[in-house]
Amino acid sequence: MKKIKNCKDSYVTMTELVLPNDTNGLDNLMGGRLMHWMDIAAAIAAQKHSNRIVVTASVDNISFSEPIRKGNTVTISAFVTRAFSSSMEVYLEVVAEDIPADKKVHTNRAFFTFVAVDQSGKPIDIPQLEPETDFEKELYEGALRRRQLRLVLGKRMKPSEAKELRSIFDMED
Amino acid sequence: MKKIKNCKDSYVTMTELVLPNDTNGLDNLMGGRLMHWMDIAAAIAAQKHSNRIVVTASVDNISFSEPIRKGNTVTISAFVTRAFSSSMEVYLEVVAEDIPADKKVHTNRAFFTFVAVDQSGKPIDIPQLEPETDFEKELYEGALRRRQLRLVLGKRMKPSEAKELRSIFDMED
Amino acid sequence: MKKIKNCKDSYVTMTELVLPNDTNGLDNLMGGRLMHWMDIAAAIAAQKHSNRIVVTASVDNISFSEPIRKGNTVTISAFVTRAFSSSMEVYLEVVAEDIPADKKVHTNRAFFTFVAVDQSGKPIDIPQLEPETDFEKELYEGALRRRQLRLVLGKRMKPSEAKELRSIFDMED
Amino acid sequence: MKKIKNCKDSYVTMTELVLPNDTNGLDNLMGGRLMHWMDIAAAIAAQKHSNRIVVTASVDNISFSEPIRKGNTVTISAFVTRAFSSSMEVYLEVVAEDIPADKKVHTNRAFFTFVAVDQSGKPIDIPQLEPETDFEKELYEGALRRRQLRLVLGKRMKPSEAKELRSIFDMED
Amino acid sequence: MKKIKNCKDSYVTMTELVLPNDTNGLDNLMGGRLMHWMDIAAAIAAQKHSNRIVVTASVDNISFSEPIRKGNTVTISAFVTRAFSSSMEVYLEVVAEDIPADKKVHTNRAFFTFVAVDQSGKPIDIPQLEPETDFEKELYEGALRRRQLRLVLGKRMKPSEAKELRSIFDMED
Amino acid sequence: MKKIKNCKDSYVTMTELVLPNDTNGLDNLMGGRLMHWMDIAAAIAAQKHSNRIVVTASVDNISFSEPIRKGNTVTISAFVTRAFSSSMEVYLEVVAEDIPADKKVHTNRAFFTFVAVDQSGKPIDIPQLEPETDFEKELYEGALRRRQLRLVLGKRMKPSEAKELRSIFDMED
Repeated sequence: MKKIKNCKDSYVTMTELVLPNDTNGLDNLMGGRLMHWMDIAAAIAAQKHSNRIVVTASVDNISFSEPIRKGNTVTISAFVTRAFSSSMEVYLEVVAEDIPADKKVHTNRAFFTFVAVDQSGKPIDIPQLEPETDFEKELYEGALRRRQLRLVLGKRMKPSEAKELRSIFDMED
Repeated sequence: MKKIKNCKDSYVTMTELVLPNDTNGLDNLMGGRLMHWMDIAAAIAAQKHSNRIVVTASVDNISFSEPIRKGNTVTISAFVTRAFSSSMEVYLEVVAEDIPADKKVHTNRAFFTFVAVDQSGKPIDIPQLEPETDFEKELYEGALRRRQLRLVLGKRMKPSEAKELRSIFDMED
Repeated sequence: MKKIKNCKDSYVTMTELVLPNDTNGLDNLMGGRLMHWMDIAAAIAAQKHSNRIVVTASVDNISFSEPIRKGNTVTISAFVTRAFSSSMEVYLEVVAEDIPADKKVHTNRAFFTFVAVDQSGKPIDIPQLEPETDFEKELYEGALRRRQLRLVLGKRMKPSEAKELRSIFDMED
Repeated sequence: MKKIKNCKDSYVTMTELVLPNDTNGLDNLMGGRLMHWMDIAAAIAAQKHSNRIVVTASVDNISFSEPIRKGNTVTISAFVTRAFSSSMEVYLEVVAEDIPADKKVHTNRAFFTFVAVDQSGKPIDIPQLEPETDFEKELYEGALRRRQLRLVLGKRMKPSEAKELRSIFDMED
Repeated sequence: MKKIKNCKDSYVTMTELVLPNDTNGLDNLMGGRLMHWMDIAAAIAAQKHSNRIVVTASVDNISFSEPIRKGNTVTISAFVTRAFSSSMEVYLEVVAEDIPADKKVHTNRAFFTFVAVDQSGKPIDIPQLEPETDFEKELYEGALRRRQLRLVLGKRMKPSEAKELRSIFDMED
Repeated sequence: MKKIKNCKDSYVTMTELVLPNDTNGLDNLMGGRLMHWMDIAAAIAAQKHSNRIVVTASVDNISFSEPIRKGNTVTISAFVTRAFSSSMEVYLEVVAEDIPADKKVHTNRAFFTFVAVDQSGKPIDIPQLEPETDFEKELYEGALRRRQLRLVLGKRMKPSEAKELRSIFDMED
């Protein structure tokens, strides 16, 4: 197995059709159903990077600003942005299309993290990731900050130790 | 309809059995399936507070540290912690039980936000919330900080304006 | 494990949202789908009482007098009413809510029985049940009559031997 | 439409394969899943008799004595046994087969009742039923007794008025 | 086990109700959902003939000329038409009914082939089939031609060797 | 809308994870489930070409030679190969991956046809297709032959009129 992998090695595209059971009383896709699909897409990306069974470790803040309608096509793209010893951050983009109306909307972007495990469920080492394009490099850089935010929010790191995190606010300005 | 409601007015408990299709290659519940259930439980809580159709607006960082096994029972409790003009924050707690082994684990806590909408999908005013117990008051207070974090992460507020947010780090210490 | 348990030890609440696929041509919840949910709720109650794998042994007469609509929330409460050597009777109550309309209807009550089994599927002894409240005591008393009715209807007891059963008619007056 | 119909006019056969998600921790079909299938089969039989939309009115006592295994084939046969003004009784037989092992077991028999309704959900008159074979005539005769039992159990008839019901016990001897 | 079986030994009928999630944007049953049901019905027929686990080997050209509506009842009949060493051809007929409207349409006929396998997945010998009625004999005769067409289309037989195949065109005239 | 479109305009990739309920007694993906996914992927491709609601018109012979295992990732790629007045042929390729084992197998190729319809379900004109790459041109050329084969097999064309069809055998040699 390769020691170093690129973002494109884990790239995956999933397409789903919004069926009646996926929708709420307004015929819009329920957020929970979309997160279910995102988790599967992200897990496949993490599997492709690690060639291991993977388990979801965390999901970062996701906002749902655009309604997705019954009958729409949902396309989820995902790839690994950075690998740590046994965990990976996966970036996802969600696009919803009303194809007969020829309308396409970028509805969500999100970050999931996964841990690669062996058959007994224990974390196991994974290949490192080397970003190639400018966008991949930007995501790679930001991964450290997002990781500190996760640790702080999960109360596993003191805010005072989260040196990278401060810059998240500068970045977001 | 009441102008002011309490946390207990929106309290909901959902119980699910982890079936084979909900699990990954290690017979553990997939994170996406759990989030799907959490979204439905939280939506019911938000409906109970607002007596309106509700749509998921955002999901805060969730971490998945404990595996939940096939055949386990998952109990999700949810209630509204604070109401804004048309949006609400919902708090969720997830407990997994292996009943034959008499083992119970608190696996997750999370915050979802929902917007109440009318039949045309437009945001609509909702009753305010008054916390009663100490725990409810703590969640109520924290809701402002978490909201600023959402706005900053969603790039809809400048970090310099997020006055409440700074204290999130003090709180987490 | 405790030798004697109370009703509250097995109490379980399940909440489900009526989705399009759960409904018939009139947008009402299909009876079979509701019984499917009731069976899972009752099985969890029986598991909680016995801390064993349980299998459905029988379902008593259920009537469906109130339609439950698409988008309604269904809340099923269940607890064990009486334990025999390896079998248990579970009482269920179903409440349907149209939350936006602030309407709540008690739609069904039912009794399911379960048998606790070991890993090879053989019946196994379970803790006895001690009722506490008046309502629990009433259900506990009635359990013998209902059991005889099940045995008679299942042709495993002669009506002439069903001494407790006669009083069912007095009770129902 | 015909004014009088026979049992064979409503006869329906449904075949299902027991998939992993239909089973419990012992790889046996869950009772609730079977009742879900039975309800759909019985509803189709009631539709065939009435040529109307139908809703489940009640389910008689069902017992589950034989385990049905994952991978088994389940065959449900159903037909209307007697028609009242707008309601019908449906008889069901369930057979489970382990085809590779060439084993077939009659696992359940049950009675469901349905009401035929118009588009607004109001009960509507249906054709009468004329039994033909000896078995059909026996079921037709018993339908009155079972109906009185349902009414008494549902507290809509006083036991003292249930004249037909007494004979149920003679019959069961 | 019998060395020779008849078509009626493998005959199976499956009945399904078209639910919302089975339909497209026009409330018509999606072709893929129908094929899913057909595959299960055909697999059960092949199991009944061979008393073995079976795997789908191929599906012949299917055309979908008649729309099947939400709420319709779909009845699929299937039986084995000819057995080869370890493979079988299964014939299927699909009938859709709008029962309240008393309308019934033969919507599809199709041929699926299955291979009987042992627990390790290896092909295994199966009983031969002897057709009885005229229709069964016609299907039995045609099975050789259809098999050659499959082999030619799958590029496992040269057209020049497909002697039986030529007559398919004569037959179809 | 464009009058002429290319294959890449309708290109779609769908990724699915093989879950327990998708598999048979040998833990292999059932053929019917795969066809269900293929139909959805092909329908999305046909929608993209036509910007219309589409209905499945036919499925060509599909063979299933490679088992796909539980836990495998299935990737389905599809695009339109040729447009007629209101119907389109869609080409599909299926790849199964056991990612942890780093094994990838091309398991199926197939052709589905779809008809574009208006809101009342009537066929409607669609843009023409212009192939660009050599492979696309080869598929475009072959579409006429495959169409004649469908018409002959569906008994809507006499074999003697199927001039293009003869070359199918030459091609397959």
